[in-house]
This record gives sequence, C-alpha cells and structure tokens, in this order.
Amino acid sequence: MLEETKQLIDSEMTILNEGDVASPQGFVAGGLHVGLRREKNDFGWLYSSVPANCAAVYTQNAFKAAPLQVTEASINLEHKLSAVVINSAIANACTGERGLEDAKQTQNWVASKLHIPEHEIAVASTGLIGEFLPMDKISFGVDNINIYNESQSENFNEAILTTDTNTKHIAVEVEIDNKIVTVGGTCKGSGMIHPNMATMLGFMTTDANVGVDDLNYLLKGSVDDTFNMITVDGDTSTNDMVILLANGESKSTMLTQSHPDWEKFANAVKYVSEYLAKSIARDGEGATKLIKAHVTGAQTKEQNNIIAKTIVGSSLVKTAVHGCDPNFGRIAASIGYGDQTVNPSDINVWLCGHLLVKNGMINEYDELDLKAKMEQDTIDIHAVVGDTEHQSTAYGCDLSYDYVKINALYRT
Amino acid sequence: MLEETKQLIDSEMTILNEGDVASPQGFVAGGLHVGLRREKNDFGWLYSSVPANCAAVYTQNAFKAAPLQVTEASINLEHKLSAVVINSAIANACTGERGLEDAKQTQNWVASKLHIPEHEIAVASTGLIGEFLPMDKISFGVDNINIYNESQSENFNEAILTTDTNTKHIAVEVEIDNKIVTVGGTCKGSGMIHPNMATMLGFMTTDANVGVDDLNYLLKGSVDDTFNMITVDGDTSTNDMVILLANGESKSTMLTQSHPDWEKFANAVKYVSEYLAKSIARDGEGATKLIKAHVTGAQTKEQNNIIAKTIVGSSLVKTAVHGCDPNFGRIAASIGYGDQTVNPSDINVWLCGHLLVKNGMINEYDELDLKAKMEQDTIDIHAVVGDTEHQSTAYGCDLSYDYVKINALYRT
Repeated sequence: MLEETKQLIDSEMTILNEGDVASPQGFVAGGLHVGLRREKNDFGWLYSSVPANCAAVYTQNAFKAAPLQVTEASINLEHKLSAVVINSAIANACTGERGLEDAKQTQNWVASKLHIPEHEIAVASTGLIGEFLPMDKISFGVDNINIYNESQSENFNEAILTTDTNTKHIAVEVEIDNKIVTVGGTCKGSGMIHPNMATMLGFMTTDANVGVDDLNYLLKGSVDDTFNMITVDGDTSTNDMVILLANGESKSTMLTQSHPDWEKFANAVKYVSEYLAKSIARDGEGATKLIKAHVTGAQTKEQNNIIAKTIVGSSLVKTAVHGCDPNFGRIAASIGYGDQTVNPSDINVWLCGHLLVKNGMINEYDELDLKAKMEQDTIDIHAVVGDTEHQSTAYGCDLSYDYVKINALYRT
Repeated sequence: MLEETKQLIDSEMTILNEGDVASPQGFVAGGLHVGLRREKNDFGWLYSSVPANCAAVYTQNAFKAAPLQVTEASINLEHKLSAVVINSAIANACTGERGLEDAKQTQNWVASKLHIPEHEIAVASTGLIGEFLPMDKISFGVDNINIYNESQSENFNEAILTTDTNTKHIAVEVEIDNKIVTVGGTCKGSGMIHPNMATMLGFMTTDANVGVDDLNYLLKGSVDDTFNMITVDGDTSTNDMVILLANGESKSTMLTQSHPDWEKFANAVKYVSEYLAKSIARDGEGATKLIKAHVTGAQTKEQNNIIAKTIVGSSLVKTAVHGCDPNFGRIAASIGYGDQTVNPSDINVWLCGHLLVKNGMINEYDELDLKAKMEQDTIDIHAVVGDTEHQSTAYGCDLSYDYVKINALYRT
C-alpha cells in the first residue's frame, strides 16, 4: 500500500505520503490510550534499535516545561537518544520541583522497561499548563510500551495531538551511495503556535549515518526556515521541541557537509520539516485556510523574515482572509509595521496572483475573480519590498469564530 | 449641567466627565455629515482662536498616510496650529501623490475659509486604506465649518469615529497661580490598535501657556505611558497621531518644567491621556471586557513594558478572558515569551485579586469566586516578575466572536 502512495517529486526524492517517524529503518513507534484524554490515544513512544545521534531545538519561553528541562539536560550528556515518550492533555509546565521529579520518574520507568540508560530517553508533554501528571496513568503507559510491533505508528501519530484535527506525518527517500536513506517525521501543534517554537512537538528520524554536529547544523537551519516561520496565534509555548534522530541503520556511508550527496540529504530533511510545519499552520485552531506569505527584497534576511511573519500573524489580515476579503490595505499596513525601514514606493503585493499594491499604491484588479480565488483553501500572498536577494516564506492560517470558541472554552 | 458631572478626584484636579477637546478656553469644535459614512457625522474640525503651540507624535508604520505626512511637515515649520480637520471612513493611505495633493488641497480650502496660514492646519483621516478621498464631499465639509457656534463639540466627537461604538472624551481642571487651567481631549480608535500609534487619533487641548519644547516632552512621556500601552489586535496603523495643543487662553503664567505647579499640570495631561487610552482599549472591536495588566520588577523599564503589553496582547489570554476562564497558564506563558530573561521562580501572578501563580507554580485558589469575578467588565492582572522598581500598566480587551465578525466583513 505504501508503494501506491509513493510519489516521485523529482529524480532525487521519493515522497511517502503515509510515511512517518517510524519509516526509517530501525525505528518503531506506538501509542495507546491511558486515560488523559477522553478516548483518543494520549501516550506515545518512539524507539530506535540502536542509540541514535540526536539534535534538538527547544522553546525560547522563559517558562520551560519540566519535561523539556529534563530532556535537554539528558541530551546534552551524549547527544544520543534511544527512546522518546510523550503524553498529550497535560503539559507538565509551571509545575516546579514536582514536575521535574515526575519527568525524571517517567525516564526512570522507561529505562527499566527498555533496558536503556535514562539519559537516552527524551520525555515530552503537551496540553494544559499547571496541572501535575497523573503518574499512575503514565506508569500504565510505560508498562504497555511495545517495541516489537512495528505496525502501530499511527497510534503514535495520534497520541501526541491536543486540539489538532488530524495527524501530521510524512517520509521521503533519497538514494545515497546506492543505499536508500529515509527521512520521516511526525508532529503536532494547533494553538499557541508562533515562531521560536510554540506548542509544537516535532519528531524527525532518519536511518542515515550522520554525526551530531552536522545533525545540529542541519536541524537548526531547517527549523529556522520552516517551524520558526509559522504562526497561528502569536503565542509561544512552554513546551515546544523539535528533535532529529539519526541511527545509521540504512548502513549508508557517513554523511558530512562535504559529502557530494549532503545537499540531497539536507533537502530531504528540509522537505519533511516544511511539510510538517505547513501541516501545523493549515490545522491551526479554527483554521479554514492556509496563508502563505512569500517576501523578497528586504535589507536583511531577518527583516525579510519578520515581514513575512508579520503578514501571516496580523489579526486583521487573518480575519480578512477568513472573510475572503481582498483587503490589500491590511497587508500593506502589516508590511509597514513589520519593517519600519521599507520604502512604500518600492512595495508590490500580489494576492492570489493579482497585483494589488503597485509601488506602494492601490492597483486596479478584477475583484470578482480575486474573491473567487480567495475561496480556495490556500491563500498566496507575495510581497516584493525591495531589490535585495533575500527570500522568506511564512505560513499561517485565518482567524475564525471557531478559534475564539476553542480558546474561550478550552478549560471549562 | 457640566457642574453636576464635575468630580473632584483629589484636591488638585477636577474631572469634567462631559468635557472634551473644546473645554479649554479659546477652542471650539464641530462636525457634520458630508456623506462619507452612511448617516453619522464624518467630518470634524477643531479651532483655536489664537495659534496654539503644538506637540505631536505619529505612527511608526513605514506606510505613513498622506494626511500625516502633510501634517507633520506643516507642524515642523513653526510648531503652531490654529485648526485641525478630520474625516472618517477613508484613511487616505496608500494613495501616493494624489493622496498628498488631496491632503494639501484640504489644507488650502481650510486656510481660505478660516483666513489662517496653511501650515497652521493639521489634516487627519481614518478609515479604509487605499481609497481616494471624494474631494467634493470634503469641500462641502470645509464650506460648512462654523467656528462661531461653541456648543457643537459632540458632533466633533462623533465625526472622528469608525468602528467605535461610543465617543471618547474627557476634560480636567487644575488651578495654577490662581487661574483655572483646563486640559481636554477627544479620541477615536477601535481596531488596528497596538503600541506605537495605531488607527487611533487623539486630540488634546489646553488653555495653559506652555512652550513647544516642554509640550513635546510632556506629550511624549504621556503617550509612552498611556496610548502606547494599549493593544487591541497587535496591528499598527498607517494613520495614527496624537496632538497636544496649548493656546494660553487661560492667561495663566508660563508653565515650564521648573514651575512649582508643573507636576500638577503634567498629571492633568497624563490623566486625560490615560482616560482616553483606556476608553479605546475598552471599546476595542468586539470587546466585552477591559483587561488591565500591571507588571512590576523586570530588569529594565522596557522589558517591564513589553511583558505588560504581551499579556494584554496574547490571543490566548484574550480568548480566556472572553470565556471567563482563569487560565493562569496562558498568562504565565505570555510573561515567559514576553521576556525570556525572567526567572520563573520569581514570578507571582494575581488575577482579579486571586494569587494564581506563586513562585512560578500553580497556586490553589477559589475557582468559583474567581470565575464570578471574571464576569465583571474589568479584568485585573497583576504580575510581579522580579524585585526591581519598574512598574508598567497596559490595557487591552478580550477577543470575541464579534471581533472576527467585524473584521471578516469590514469591506464587503
């Protein structure tokens, strides 16, 4: 069946639409219901048959949740992971010493169960802030980890969700020195999504053979261009983390940045990262549309990124998109406050292919055709703000009644 | 009647709740319907019988609307104004050369009508971006400016509104050297409201005798602590401006920063400024509640301000307040991403008087009592994030279904 969904996007990469974090060789993933959520899976695990080299990025929120603190300290010891366990529903954030002890206890149980060192285990939580984990349920979950059944990764993909409406996963294959190397990923994230890691958990795996330094370099670059370029509501969470594991089980040659196929491999990781990030933006809380803002020409790469993120983060742009309203003025205004150094007369903006702003002024366009295009589920905004070579793409979603509904009534 | 609404807040200041921009001596204001809005007043004027010293602050958006550009250039010539004319419904922003010419034409017409120099006239517009002013309607408005009828300032207060649901105005009196000095103000602003001047027009007047430099110093400080500490939707507009005019018509002695009553006068200006800013936040688009965040103890005043603004700007805090949900986790998270240098264990947060976060951890509270308090129309959040003396107060509003409705359907 997987064969049927393989899709060749170019001669270099094969897309496995049903692939996920367990697609690369040597990884298994699973999940089950332990009673944290009403009925859906809420406890998941990812396991590598050999310790995998690990790169990770964490939230920049000063309130770093307990599991993140424990995981970061563990990874920093050897930069190797054999397992990741995750629970949804409760974030174990703002839980002080007891939260840290709970996270360490989870590590300890998993270590005993799987006969691996504690520091090779990452723990992650997502959900409500400020509640303690019910450790009996976590213990039940650990007892039921099953790393011998390879066909249950869809349970993992579901177990990490909170308000997400669908699972988010992909895998791609590339050929390196006559070996197939696979890169897979699964993520969650729906609200509290903003650049610099939000309530977003991303797990990427590969059976390539890559050292920790190269892996970190690759992950940092990929996350900056993808996960850090999405926004749902501008709120940066306490629990975000993206992990990239490489276990070498494809038996490929060692990949370094000087290897002739490094770019091919890096593109595979970037593709998975971008696919997952887009799927988070598209599934933003209450979202009905994906907004893609492609910006070129700002004075610096950072200013260019900020403009793109400001456009997709603007509540006024988001509500206009929700109402299929070609309100170019709000896009122009968001560019102007995203970067106060732009010169309005240099600015051109296209919305769904129509040139709306020409040299900083309104341009005539076919309103009927544009409004029809805005009914589609992806809204493309393209802004040229100057003549430099900088390019950025940010992803967001519309702001709907349902966003308010979901968030006004989350706890109660 | 005004006497009845006078309210003595302390021995130093008398509040005139029905006062406005025309309360100080020598100022008149008026407005009428010229056909830009469906039926409400949409064209207003403010006139000083003698040229008034003028201080002003403008939006920081790179797209500065045509009337702002023209007004800024005019004020910079002599820092004196005799008149301000305003239209609502159309912002005259992103309108290029023609927009500038329209703003100058308006100035020119007013100069002829009132026999004053063009550069003593400020022009302001608020409303939809990217449309040209219908100059026949503006011309009609100018022809009907009437500076001899002193009792029509309520027409001015209405003429400057867009999606506002009510007029916003106040005046206060202080006694200086045995003379009554009055400070009055009128403002508008409902959406696209964010620190650093949003779609917000603020006009403050006083009959005190104050030089331009002291006036600018006073305005800058007042705006930083009030208008720049409110947020509705995080979007910074192209048209924001706050003006403070002093015409000396109280015949008071010259006020300088070294005058013994300077603080008394400065407090009056600050009071008017704060009252107007709060009234904007409370009347944010779709708002049902005012959110007040008082923060103390960050390392710098700027960090302290950012934390306060981040709390009231967080979509998740705003929706939680809308749902009367004491979701302390979202408040803590917003503090943690507002300032990534805070130490979570130093943080204490009170919501409507209940201590929710104690040393960075959840604290037990009476949920029933707190939920009842959250039904009130002002929600107080108090956060201590460290032990410095810095204090900031920011104002915002909840995020409701109506915000989405208003903004998804604004143009169509």
